[in-house]
Amino acid sequence: MACMTLMARNTDMRWRLPLVCLLWEVAMIVLFGVFVRFNPEADAAGWGIMKRQKNITSDSENDFYFRYPSFQDVHVMIFVGFGFLMTFLQRYGYGAVGFNFLLAAFGIQWALLMQGWFHTFENGKILIGVESLIGADFCVGSVCIAFGALLGKVSPVQLLIMTLFQVTLFSVNEYILLDLLHVKDAGGSMTIHTFGAYFGLTVTAILYRPNLDQNKEKQDSVYHSDLFAMIGTLFLWMYWPSFNSAISNHGDAQHRAAINTYCSLASCVLTTVAFSSMLQRKGKLNMVHIQNATLAGGVAVGTAAEMMLTPYGSLIVGFICGIVSTVGFVYFSPFLESRLNIQDTCGIHNLHAMPGLIGGIVGAITAAAATEEVYGKDGLIRAFDFTGDHSQRTTSVQGGFQAAGIAVSLGMALAGGAIVGGILKLPFFGDPMDENCFEDNVYWEVPGDEESGLYCMHDPNIKAVESP
Amino acid sequence: MACMTLMARNTDMRWRLPLVCLLWEVAMIVLFGVFVRFNPEADAAGWGIMKRQKNITSDSENDFYFRYPSFQDVHVMIFVGFGFLMTFLQRYGYGAVGFNFLLAAFGIQWALLMQGWFHTFENGKILIGVESLIGADFCVGSVCIAFGALLGKVSPVQLLIMTLFQVTLFSVNEYILLDLLHVKDAGGSMTIHTFGAYFGLTVTAILYRPNLDQNKEKQDSVYHSDLFAMIGTLFLWMYWPSFNSAISNHGDAQHRAAINTYCSLASCVLTTVAFSSMLQRKGKLNMVHIQNATLAGGVAVGTAAEMMLTPYGSLIVGFICGIVSTVGFVYFSPFLESRLNIQDTCGIHNLHAMPGLIGGIVGAITAAAATEEVYGKDGLIRAFDFTGDHSQRTTSVQGGFQAAGIAVSLGMALAGGAIVGGILKLPFFGDPMDENCFEDNVYWEVPGDEESGLYCMHDPNIKAVESP
Amino acid sequence: MACMTLMARNTDMRWRLPLVCLLWEVAMIVLFGVFVRFNPEADAAGWGIMKRQKNITSDSENDFYFRYPSFQDVHVMIFVGFGFLMTFLQRYGYGAVGFNFLLAAFGIQWALLMQGWFHTFENGKILIGVESLIGADFCVGSVCIAFGALLGKVSPVQLLIMTLFQVTLFSVNEYILLDLLHVKDAGGSMTIHTFGAYFGLTVTAILYRPNLDQNKEKQDSVYHSDLFAMIGTLFLWMYWPSFNSAISNHGDAQHRAAINTYCSLASCVLTTVAFSSMLQRKGKLNMVHIQNATLAGGVAVGTAAEMMLTPYGSLIVGFICGIVSTVGFVYFSPFLESRLNIQDTCGIHNLHAMPGLIGGIVGAITAAAATEEVYGKDGLIRAFDFTGDHSQRTTSVQGGFQAAGIAVSLGMALAGGAIVGGILKLPFFGDPMDENCFEDNVYWEVPGDEESGLYCMHDPNIKAVESP
Repeated sequence: MACMTLMARNTDMRWRLPLVCLLWEVAMIVLFGVFVRFNPEADAAGWGIMKRQKNITSDSENDFYFRYPSFQDVHVMIFVGFGFLMTFLQRYGYGAVGFNFLLAAFGIQWALLMQGWFHTFENGKILIGVESLIGADFCVGSVCIAFGALLGKVSPVQLLIMTLFQVTLFSVNEYILLDLLHVKDAGGSMTIHTFGAYFGLTVTAILYRPNLDQNKEKQDSVYHSDLFAMIGTLFLWMYWPSFNSAISNHGDAQHRAAINTYCSLASCVLTTVAFSSMLQRKGKLNMVHIQNATLAGGVAVGTAAEMMLTPYGSLIVGFICGIVSTVGFVYFSPFLESRLNIQDTCGIHNLHAMPGLIGGIVGAITAAAATEEVYGKDGLIRAFDFTGDHSQRTTSVQGGFQAAGIAVSLGMALAGGAIVGGILKLPFFGDPMDENCFEDNVYWEVPGDEESGLYCMHDPNIKAVESP
Repeated sequence: MACMTLMARNTDMRWRLPLVCLLWEVAMIVLFGVFVRFNPEADAAGWGIMKRQKNITSDSENDFYFRYPSFQDVHVMIFVGFGFLMTFLQRYGYGAVGFNFLLAAFGIQWALLMQGWFHTFENGKILIGVESLIGADFCVGSVCIAFGALLGKVSPVQLLIMTLFQVTLFSVNEYILLDLLHVKDAGGSMTIHTFGAYFGLTVTAILYRPNLDQNKEKQDSVYHSDLFAMIGTLFLWMYWPSFNSAISNHGDAQHRAAINTYCSLASCVLTTVAFSSMLQRKGKLNMVHIQNATLAGGVAVGTAAEMMLTPYGSLIVGFICGIVSTVGFVYFSPFLESRLNIQDTCGIHNLHAMPGLIGGIVGAITAAAATEEVYGKDGLIRAFDFTGDHSQRTTSVQGGFQAAGIAVSLGMALAGGAIVGGILKLPFFGDPMDENCFEDNVYWEVPGDEESGLYCMHDPNIKAVESP
Repeated sequence: MACMTLMARNTDMRWRLPLVCLLWEVAMIVLFGVFVRFNPEADAAGWGIMKRQKNITSDSENDFYFRYPSFQDVHVMIFVGFGFLMTFLQRYGYGAVGFNFLLAAFGIQWALLMQGWFHTFENGKILIGVESLIGADFCVGSVCIAFGALLGKVSPVQLLIMTLFQVTLFSVNEYILLDLLHVKDAGGSMTIHTFGAYFGLTVTAILYRPNLDQNKEKQDSVYHSDLFAMIGTLFLWMYWPSFNSAISNHGDAQHRAAINTYCSLASCVLTTVAFSSMLQRKGKLNMVHIQNATLAGGVAVGTAAEMMLTPYGSLIVGFICGIVSTVGFVYFSPFLESRLNIQDTCGIHNLHAMPGLIGGIVGAITAAAATEEVYGKDGLIRAFDFTGDHSQRTTSVQGGFQAAGIAVSLGMALAGGAIVGGILKLPFFGDPMDENCFEDNVYWEVPGDEESGLYCMHDPNIKAVESP
């Protein structure tokens, strides 16, 4: 009973969570008021002027119609995809969907500002349009990935603080890659996946909980929670071609990025199933692999999908990543936990970190191998934006810069994760005690959760555990 | 046992439901046969003629490509969004999804006719296209909202009758607002949300059941039902930018409406979480708030989203609505039930009624504040359609008419709801007895539901209640 | 215990499943490497050349923007729609979603090749674009349909082998219909539904299991599994307008196909509800009917949706199909099982076979009834592609060819299904024993599934059955 009171004192969010939410949001309103305006394509006066100036005769030339369907698919991936993918835990469904919802809703606002300052800042104003919305969703995607490693072990206040820092670092890293190094990374193998995953893994390593094993059973799924998770998996898998093509150049580049991603993902499913069966006792398939490793093919063509990777090149990348990711779940994850103290709840090392690195490498090779013969003279310039300061850059040099982008992303993630992990370790953010990890009733009103502190489980075969 | 027979007699739908369904549908076929034709953009002969007459060189100018992606998002909101949002009740999942499906499928047909007569009636024919489909879905959205107040307490026959009347009244109200008052309301803060919610609240007040408290427990959720409801919440939340931009002008207006809605919704999540935590015992979050109040920001920019509300204006609206809606769930709903006899199952007063009114007011203010400086001369005319009879209207006059639109919608809803509530009170529509409310097995074959009348619960902690 | 060992020996997938997956996928990589390239609209060099040659001034003319939103909707139907529709079984949710995922991921690759060789083979290369992706998804749709008949009774290896053959036969049949007979079938009433359903029914007849009745209870749903299935139903229902319009001509044809399908589906819901209530004891609705028969209207306008079927014609087709399909579930399915040994797990005869035939007939009639008066001179040529070799064909002749297409599809399905069923009967593919049918724990690691062979049920009211 004394322990109950203690627990209640530690994790009671009553003032801390509202305070952070309201503070963050008021800051957003002030900053949006000062800085954010519509870009000409979304502006009542601006679109008319732009049409006259550029001799545009049809509204169908508005960027909205080129990108909005892809934006909506990406939006579904962030909120339903990542949210439901993480509902596999038997008693953490509210936290998975709900905290993902919270951090993403805050993150997209802060990302609009950060990315706006770096990319669309003109005359003291940030000009936003549909591409900004996609960019913000992408940025938040990297936070959702990091959340996957921390799932069940942190408080919502910690998540909001992490989001603030991670979005900031993401935007700096993205600026270095896209603007300073002039790297191509439309689907974010480096900026989103490599950065997000290694950031999250570093944070979780710093927040290491040595006694977490005692509630190992809560880290398992139940039958229904695995089906909820499959909703997340499938929406991620189906819409990934939209993700990788969303901000590519109009025309052939968007078209090609979607096809390459479609192929890579299809191939990845086959090798995931093969290795899941091969590595399990009695050849039975493991839902964790199907839920996660099938997506690795999308991650790994994030950089190269808009390039002339070709359909069979995509199949090969998917083939390899299904294997790497499944093997990772079986062999690497236990190793990371026991040797490196990395408690990676969702296995983001297998789904985002390794495939992200592969994606960066595939992108560097594909860029270095690009020729005028394949892309055409104009096509090559357009595909790699070899204009202005970069008009003399060759594809092999581009390949080198791509490789540098991987290293920068990795470095930023490790350094940033170490700092942010240290901040999150401060004792007043209300993180749960070890025995309450992976439990919704710490931060949520749960139906059937009584005054006694007993939990009303949704699976009758799992016994309730009383707080000591 | 006598009671069982009585109950069976009362709620047996065997002849009433098929009769109403077939009658309604035969009427639709006859009326469609007499009146409904394709508009030129969907007509095999018409599109060719239109292209020649208007010098259209590309099929991409067909309205289909400007609106179809938004239409599909709206379609998902109506059928999956509203349907699953209402599955939170532990024993009413079939009814929530299934009856919503039924009433929406009928409603869209009747709405195509009603809205067609008012808006696209030419030479004795209603000409329909993709914008008509969106309009029909919008209209049915208001019925889904009203259903939220009645959930679990009415028979499918009552719902079909209500749909017939409500769609009719909706179309009349919409005609008064859009055509007679020349009001702008692209996202339907007034026509859909204010009208739908107050209509539903009036109906539920008239159908008041004083003894409903006895099965209060059935009005609670269980763990899984809350996760199903989150599917509805998230699809509503994600696709709301499509909802508010679906029928705006091509180009900048659609673009702007999507951005404003995106911003408002993001902001709304933060204040919902803040107040949910602040107002609950021990600061624990309440899923009811997360499922509903997070959407209020979308409702409240329904009128103004296509105007130059600006991103920070949208953040402010979302900020306020998250608070109003959450506070509504905690304080207003119990008050409405105990003092005004309004038994509002889903809390539509908090999600649709109050935010709808706010949305109308925000729209009136935004319209009144519009200037040529911000919109440009042409932009202002285009945004508010100040042409023809309305070419002399000023923005401040427009603001006044917008405000009048709120009053008209409210009046129509209250009067219409009172009449329709009276009709639904007639004793032969098979509504359930108080003790069978919120129970799927009244109208559905439920697995494990035995001859005995006993119910096979999906949550083992809730005891079966035998009919007295 | 001996039996346990035997079972384990029979269904252990450890080497067979990985072998088939890897073999199939390596074959895909080799064949893609030899044959598959981007078409000009997705090619870095090609799009620039095409724009110059055809005087295209805007990227919005790229086919990607006409078809990609529809493609994504179709993609959702195949993976979430069919996958979740089949989760209604209480203990086969993993198999439903997971095996559907597996077979579809393989099938789309093989379909890209097969359809490519028949339709877009130029200078020794298959040129693919967004329309190819839609075609591949369509082809796989027919395999998902056939899987519906076999659900719970076959091993993943059998499914992969069936997919290989069925995709091959589908492509041959499609080539005969579309190219040799010059038949129109944009939504696939004949090529997808009639072919897929009769193919699957024939296979399941050949794989007849006389002792399957003993685990009849496992073929029932539980409360939650029915809600998961409704996710599938609704995504199929909502996106069916995209399915039927996805590969129609740009402009009016896509527009019209979407409207016709929308109308037919709406009408179908009403008659399904009417007959479900009318044919059930006490007038209670049956979820099986709501989940399936409501979709029959989409199947039955698959051929005619892009023609001038008109909205009221679509309502009539939907009206009839809701009745036929519901009556099929109540009367025909038991008959097929008891008299013809067709054990049709999902009732595809009612949802795809009969409505598919109706769709073929409706298409033939609509084509035969087409006139220049309705379509315009150019419109008629464009709608039926009466150009080149077919420039002299009349609409009544077209109607005859349409009818011939039904017969060919039916013949191919029956003959092909017989052969493939015979192959799948070979004893080394690891199909489950009768008492293990409809059980996920044969091929999947299931949470709570103990060494003892006992199954941890997710519904506490169903008792565990020990293997004999």
